[in-house]
Amino acid sequence: MSFNSFGHLFCVTTWGESHGPALGATIDGCPPNVPIDAADIQIWLDKRKPGQNKFTTQRREADEVEILSGVFEGKTTGTPIQLMIRNTDQRSKDYGDIADTFRPGHADITYWQKYGIRDYRGGGRSSARETAARVAASGVARAALHVLCPSLEIKGYMVQMGEQTIDRTRFDWDFIDQNPFWMPDAEAFDGWSKYLDDIRKSHESVGAVIEVVAKNAPAGLGAPIYAKLDTDLSAAMMSINAVKGVEIGEGMASAALTGSQNADEIYLGNDGQPSYSSNHAGGILGGISTGQDIVVRFAVKPTSSILTPRKSISKSGKPIDVVTKGRHDPCVGIRAVPVGEAMMACVLLDHLLLHRGQVGPENGGQIG
Amino acid sequence: MSFNSFGHLFCVTTWGESHGPALGATIDGCPPNVPIDAADIQIWLDKRKPGQNKFTTQRREADEVEILSGVFEGKTTGTPIQLMIRNTDQRSKDYGDIADTFRPGHADITYWQKYGIRDYRGGGRSSARETAARVAASGVARAALHVLCPSLEIKGYMVQMGEQTIDRTRFDWDFIDQNPFWMPDAEAFDGWSKYLDDIRKSHESVGAVIEVVAKNAPAGLGAPIYAKLDTDLSAAMMSINAVKGVEIGEGMASAALTGSQNADEIYLGNDGQPSYSSNHAGGILGGISTGQDIVVRFAVKPTSSILTPRKSISKSGKPIDVVTKGRHDPCVGIRAVPVGEAMMACVLLDHLLLHRGQVGPENGGQIG
Amino acid sequence: MSFNSFGHLFCVTTWGESHGPALGATIDGCPPNVPIDAADIQIWLDKRKPGQNKFTTQRREADEVEILSGVFEGKTTGTPIQLMIRNTDQRSKDYGDIADTFRPGHADITYWQKYGIRDYRGGGRSSARETAARVAASGVARAALHVLCPSLEIKGYMVQMGEQTIDRTRFDWDFIDQNPFWMPDAEAFDGWSKYLDDIRKSHESVGAVIEVVAKNAPAGLGAPIYAKLDTDLSAAMMSINAVKGVEIGEGMASAALTGSQNADEIYLGNDGQPSYSSNHAGGILGGISTGQDIVVRFAVKPTSSILTPRKSISKSGKPIDVVTKGRHDPCVGIRAVPVGEAMMACVLLDHLLLHRGQVGPENGGQIG
Amino acid sequence: MSFNSFGHLFCVTTWGESHGPALGATIDGCPPNVPIDAADIQIWLDKRKPGQNKFTTQRREADEVEILSGVFEGKTTGTPIQLMIRNTDQRSKDYGDIADTFRPGHADITYWQKYGIRDYRGGGRSSARETAARVAASGVARAALHVLCPSLEIKGYMVQMGEQTIDRTRFDWDFIDQNPFWMPDAEAFDGWSKYLDDIRKSHESVGAVIEVVAKNAPAGLGAPIYAKLDTDLSAAMMSINAVKGVEIGEGMASAALTGSQNADEIYLGNDGQPSYSSNHAGGILGGISTGQDIVVRFAVKPTSSILTPRKSISKSGKPIDVVTKGRHDPCVGIRAVPVGEAMMACVLLDHLLLHRGQVGPENGGQIG
Repeated sequence: MSFNSFGHLFCVTTWGESHGPALGATIDGCPPNVPIDAADIQIWLDKRKPGQNKFTTQRREADEVEILSGVFEGKTTGTPIQLMIRNTDQRSKDYGDIADTFRPGHADITYWQKYGIRDYRGGGRSSARETAARVAASGVARAALHVLCPSLEIKGYMVQMGEQTIDRTRFDWDFIDQNPFWMPDAEAFDGWSKYLDDIRKSHESVGAVIEVVAKNAPAGLGAPIYAKLDTDLSAAMMSINAVKGVEIGEGMASAALTGSQNADEIYLGNDGQPSYSSNHAGGILGGISTGQDIVVRFAVKPTSSILTPRKSISKSGKPIDVVTKGRHDPCVGIRAVPVGEAMMACVLLDHLLLHRGQVGPENGGQIG
Repeated sequence: MSFNSFGHLFCVTTWGESHGPALGATIDGCPPNVPIDAADIQIWLDKRKPGQNKFTTQRREADEVEILSGVFEGKTTGTPIQLMIRNTDQRSKDYGDIADTFRPGHADITYWQKYGIRDYRGGGRSSARETAARVAASGVARAALHVLCPSLEIKGYMVQMGEQTIDRTRFDWDFIDQNPFWMPDAEAFDGWSKYLDDIRKSHESVGAVIEVVAKNAPAGLGAPIYAKLDTDLSAAMMSINAVKGVEIGEGMASAALTGSQNADEIYLGNDGQPSYSSNHAGGILGGISTGQDIVVRFAVKPTSSILTPRKSISKSGKPIDVVTKGRHDPCVGIRAVPVGEAMMACVLLDHLLLHRGQVGPENGGQIG
Repeated sequence: MSFNSFGHLFCVTTWGESHGPALGATIDGCPPNVPIDAADIQIWLDKRKPGQNKFTTQRREADEVEILSGVFEGKTTGTPIQLMIRNTDQRSKDYGDIADTFRPGHADITYWQKYGIRDYRGGGRSSARETAARVAASGVARAALHVLCPSLEIKGYMVQMGEQTIDRTRFDWDFIDQNPFWMPDAEAFDGWSKYLDDIRKSHESVGAVIEVVAKNAPAGLGAPIYAKLDTDLSAAMMSINAVKGVEIGEGMASAALTGSQNADEIYLGNDGQPSYSSNHAGGILGGISTGQDIVVRFAVKPTSSILTPRKSISKSGKPIDVVTKGRHDPCVGIRAVPVGEAMMACVLLDHLLLHRGQVGPENGGQIG
Repeated sequence: MSFNSFGHLFCVTTWGESHGPALGATIDGCPPNVPIDAADIQIWLDKRKPGQNKFTTQRREADEVEILSGVFEGKTTGTPIQLMIRNTDQRSKDYGDIADTFRPGHADITYWQKYGIRDYRGGGRSSARETAARVAASGVARAALHVLCPSLEIKGYMVQMGEQTIDRTRFDWDFIDQNPFWMPDAEAFDGWSKYLDDIRKSHESVGAVIEVVAKNAPAGLGAPIYAKLDTDLSAAMMSINAVKGVEIGEGMASAALTGSQNADEIYLGNDGQPSYSSNHAGGILGGISTGQDIVVRFAVKPTSSILTPRKSISKSGKPIDVVTKGRHDPCVGIRAVPVGEAMMACVLLDHLLLHRGQVGPENGGQIG
C-alpha cells in the first residue's frame, strides 16, 4: 500500500530525487543464500548509465552502487537489502529557472497541485533518474532468479523509434547488445542513427516502443484476478517514466483479429510438454504463464525536455515560453530498455515466490 | 497482497465461479454515510447483463444483487460491504465435455498447470462472469464519488470492433447509450451491425478497443512512483478478462510523435485554472491527474469460445479438436464497456481517499 | 491495508453485522487441492456456538456455514473461498432502546464518533458475533495445515476466570474438551461453576485469561522485524473483541526475571534436534519459531452487557442509566477459547506459506 | 506484506544490521509540507543513544542521522524519506566467537534454522540496534503530528524494573525526564539504582515494564476489525526486541474484574465532550479511540547477553558454555522507553491519515 513500492513478496521501495545527495532501493523479502556482490549489480547499472554516447544525456553519473545491508560474506541473508547510489554530477543551477515554472509535458505542475511543494531540481522525484534504483534492485532479482530458475533469460530491445520500425524478418538477437539503441535489426541501424541525429539537431525528441521478452519462464506463474502476471507486468511497465501504453503479446492489435486467428493452438511437444502453434497470447493465459515466451511491449513518449520553445505558465499564472536547456536524451526510450528488463526480472521473481508460497515448489497439474 | 483484491483504501475483493452457487464482492474501506441501496447497484449490473440482444451471450442471468452487510438504513456504515449475486442459469452440462480438455486461448491449461485442479464449468474463476462482481462494487464506488466529487462523470464506449473503427469527427456522446455497442458514431452503426452479424454467422468472434473517459476529476490524484494513477488504471484494465493492451492518452501512438507534437501546452483558463492546448497526456502527468479528461483505452481480444474447430490436447496429452458450443458473445468487448467504467470508478475513488489521507482534503498548491 | 483483513498470503476478510442478513469470511490465498467440505468447518463453529449451556448467551444461532466459492468436488481450487453464515435469531427489538444510547464499555460511542452512523442492533459490526466468521475461516486453515504440517496440534483453554486461576500442577489435557469452560483443571471445575453462577445471578460478568498452544510447529516460522510470528500472533489475538492484553511465553512476568532465569538453555535432543531446558520464550526467539510449543495468552475483559445499571449519556448528551437486557454471556472468555485457536491456526498457516515463499520448502540451516 | 515494514499509509521500512556499514528507515506516505530537519530527528535518537550512563551499553555510537531524500528546503515533499545512520563503533571482533555458537535466549539459532545464513556480528538484524531506525522515523512522525494534532503529547516511562515497581500515588510527570530510568517515582529512584547496580555487578540482567501514554488524541482513530488501534499498537510494541507482553488500559488485570468494575461510565464534560469516570479501557473501545488517554504497556524480558555462563550448543551440535562478553545493558528496558514512544507516534500518525482518508477530515458523529 506504499506509494513507492512494488512487489508482493519480493518488495522493492525506491527513494531519492534527481539532485538530492543519493537515491536507492530498499528490497524486502529476497530469498536468503543468493550469491551477490556490488559488481553483479553494477553490470546492469552500467547498461543504463547516461552519457555513454551522443544519443543519451551528457550528465555523467558514476552510478556506483553500495550495498548497505542484507548481504553477508557475499550472500543475501533474507533481511532487507539497502542499495544506495550517490548523486555526484548534480548541476542544480541548470534548474534554478524552473523553480517557478511548469514545464509542459512534465510533472512539475501536478506535483505542485498535489503536494504544494516540489523539489524542482531536475524534476526531483519525477526524474527518470529514479529508474537507476529499479535497475539496481533488478541486479538482486536476477541473482535470485539465477538460483531459482537458471534457464530463464530476459532481454529487452527497441522495436520502434519515432516513425522508424524494425523489420521482424531480420530479427537478430546478437545484434541487440552491439548497438546503442538495443535494436535487433542491423540493416536498419544506419537509418535510425541518422534519423535520431536529425531529431537532436532540430532541437526535438522522439518516442519509442520497447519489447521485453522472458524465455524459459515456467508455466504456472501468476494468479487470478487482480494479481495476474499480465496485470503486474502492466503496472510495472506503466510505472516507468514517460510510458503511455503497455501490450501483452498481440496487444492492441488483437482487437482486429478473429477468434480463430488469435487463439494459439496447443500441441504436445516432443519433450512431453505443451507446445503452441503461435504466441498471440504473449505467454500468458488467464493471467498465468503458459511456459511460452512472455512478451511485453511499452511505448515511451518523447521527452518534453527540448530546446524548442513551448508555451506554459508560471506559478503565478503568467504566460511564459519554456525552453529546456539542461542535458537531455533525444530518445529517452533508449535508456528505457534496461529499465524494462529490470521490471520484468523483479515481477517474475516476485511471482515465483508467490507461486511457491501458495502452491508449493512444484506446479500442480501434470499433462500427458 | 491478496490475489483477488484491488485498491489501496477502497479495497475490493471479488469471489465466485461461473457455475458455483453465487459470486460477489467484498468491499472494505468505503466512506460512511454514503446513500446506497440495491437498486443503485442494479442499474450498472443491468447495463452489463448478458442476453440483452443478439450480440451478447444468450445465458440469461437475473444478476440480482443482495447487500449482505455494511449498509444500514440506506447508508454505508464504513464497515465491509458484502454484495452477493446468485447464479441462476448455470447449464453445467454444456461444459462436461471440457473437463479433460484445454480450450485454446483459454485459461483451462494454465489453471491446471498452476493449481492441479480447476473448476472447469464455464471456465470457473477465469470466466468473464467475475466481472459482474466488479460492476456491483462500482455501484458503491459511484455512490461515494457522487458525494465526494459530484461533478465527476465516467463514460465508456467502443472505438474499434475488429477491423471497424469510429470516425472521431462524428463523435456523439448522446448516441453512446442508444445502441447495443456503446459506440459514439451513429453513422457507422449499421456497418458495425452487419459486420458483427457476419462474424457470428461464420462461427467466429472478434476483438475490440474500449475507451473510458473521466470528466471533471480533480487535479492531484495519483502518487509517485508505483501507485501512479496511470499505473493503477493500467493494472485495473489489464485485470479484465481478455484485455491485452492498455493505453493512457496518446498511448502506443505517442512513440511516433516528437516532443513538440506531444507536450500539451499550458494556459491559464478564464476560470483561473490551468488549461491545456491538447490532451496527449490523457489527463495524467507524472502519475498525477492534471484536471483534464482522464482517458484510458484497452484492447479486448476476440473470445476463443467459437464454433470453428481449433486444435488442442486433452489432459492426457492426446490431440483433440475443440469446438466451443456453450453460449458466447461474438464480441466480448461489448460487455467490457461497463466493466471498464467500473474499474475507472473504483480506481478514482481509491485515489481520492488516498489523496485526502496523505495530503488532506484540499490540493496543495495554488496557481495564479 | 484493508481494515477488515488479516494475513499476508493466507488472507482472511470478515464481513457482516450482528443483526444483518448474514456474515462471513472471504479467504484469499488458500493452497489448492486441500480436501474440505462444510462439515469440516462446522465442527469448529459448533464449538463456538452460543446457547449450548447456561454459561453462554441464550441467543440460538444455527451458525450453519455455506461454502459459496473456491471449493470444487471437495477440494480447494486456490481461488477465493467465500464462507457465509446466515443470521437466523436476530431479535432486533431487544436493541431498539440503544439506538440513541451509548452503552458504557462498548463501541457504541466510538463508532458514532468515528463514522457518524452505526448499526446499533446488537452492536452491529462490533459484536462478538463477528468471531464466527474467523472460526469458519480457521476450519479452512486447519484443513490446509493438516496437509502441510500434519503433526501440528492447536489447543486453547482457560487458565483464569475472574479471580479463579488453575493449578498448573493438575494440568489435564484430556479434561479440556470435557467441560464447558475448556479448563484443564478438573479439581477446580466445581468451584469455577459455582463462582460463575453467582456472577450471573448477581447480574454481573467477569473476565478471563485464555492460553493457546501450538505443538509440533516447525522451527523457522516468522520473519523480522514487523512480521514476527509473535507480532502477528499478538495482533491476531488483540483483534478479538474484549481482549486487553496478550502475552507470549512468560509474558508480562518476564519483567521480574533475571537473564539467567529467563534464557532457555539449549541441548541437542536424542532426535538430533535442538531441545530446551525450559520454554520461557513461548517457542519464539527473535520473532521466529524454535520448534518448541508456541504459547500465547490473552486476557478478555468482562462484558459490559450486564443487568446492573451503569451511568452513560444519550446521543443528545443527556445522562441516562443503562441496563443491558438482551441475551449475554456472564463470561465471554469461554467462547473466546475457540476464537483464540482459530487465530492461531490462521496465523501459523500464513507463516508456513510465507516461509516457503521466501525461503523455499525446507528450513535453511542444519544443526549437528 | 513486507516483512520489515509497518504502517498502512505512513509506512516505515527499516533496514540494516548491527555491524554493517549503516542502518536506517525508508518512510513512505508522509504528508507534504511538514517542517523537519535532521536536528528534529536527532533529539529522539539522542534520547535512545547507548553509552550515556553506567546503566546502558558502553558501545558509543554517534547515531547521527542523515536525511537522504524526501525533504526539500526544510519541508517534507510527500515523497519517500530516507534516513540513514552510519555505524561507527562496530567492534566485530567481540563477536567472532559466536559465529558458530547459538546464544541462549537470542535469535541466533532461529535465524540459522530459518535462513541457513546469518550475520552473527552483534546479532546482525536481530540486534536492538535496529530500534534506532524506528526512533529516527518517529522524529518525522512527531513533526507531522505536531502539524496535524498539535495538542497531542506522547510520553513513555518505566513502571517496573525486575522486582521493583513504582508507587502510582507518587506519580510525577516532571521527574520522568530527570532520571536515567525514565521513571515517574522520585522516591523509589535510589532503590532502583542500587538494585540495578547489584544486578550488573552479579553479571546478570533484568526485565522491565514500560508504559506509554498519548494525551489529547482525538476520538475516532482506529478501525474495525483487524486494523483496530489497539491491534496495531500491540503489533507495534510486540515488534520491539525482547518484548513478551502487551497490555491496553487495564490489560491482563481486566480478567479479574467484574463488568461493573471494568466499564468506564460516561458523562458529558463541561466542554460538551464525553467524559469518563475512569479509564480501564486505556482510551480505546471497539478498536477506536475515545478521546481519553491512550495507555499501552509492554514487558521487556531481561537480556540474555550476560556474563553468567549458560548452556547451549554449537552449529555442529556440540554442547558449549556461553558467556556473552560484548557490551550490554543490565536492563534493556531502559532504552525501550524512547522506542515505545516512537512506535506510539508512528501508529497514531498512521491512523490519523487512515481516518481522514476513509472518513474525511472531521469525525463523523456529534454528541449533545
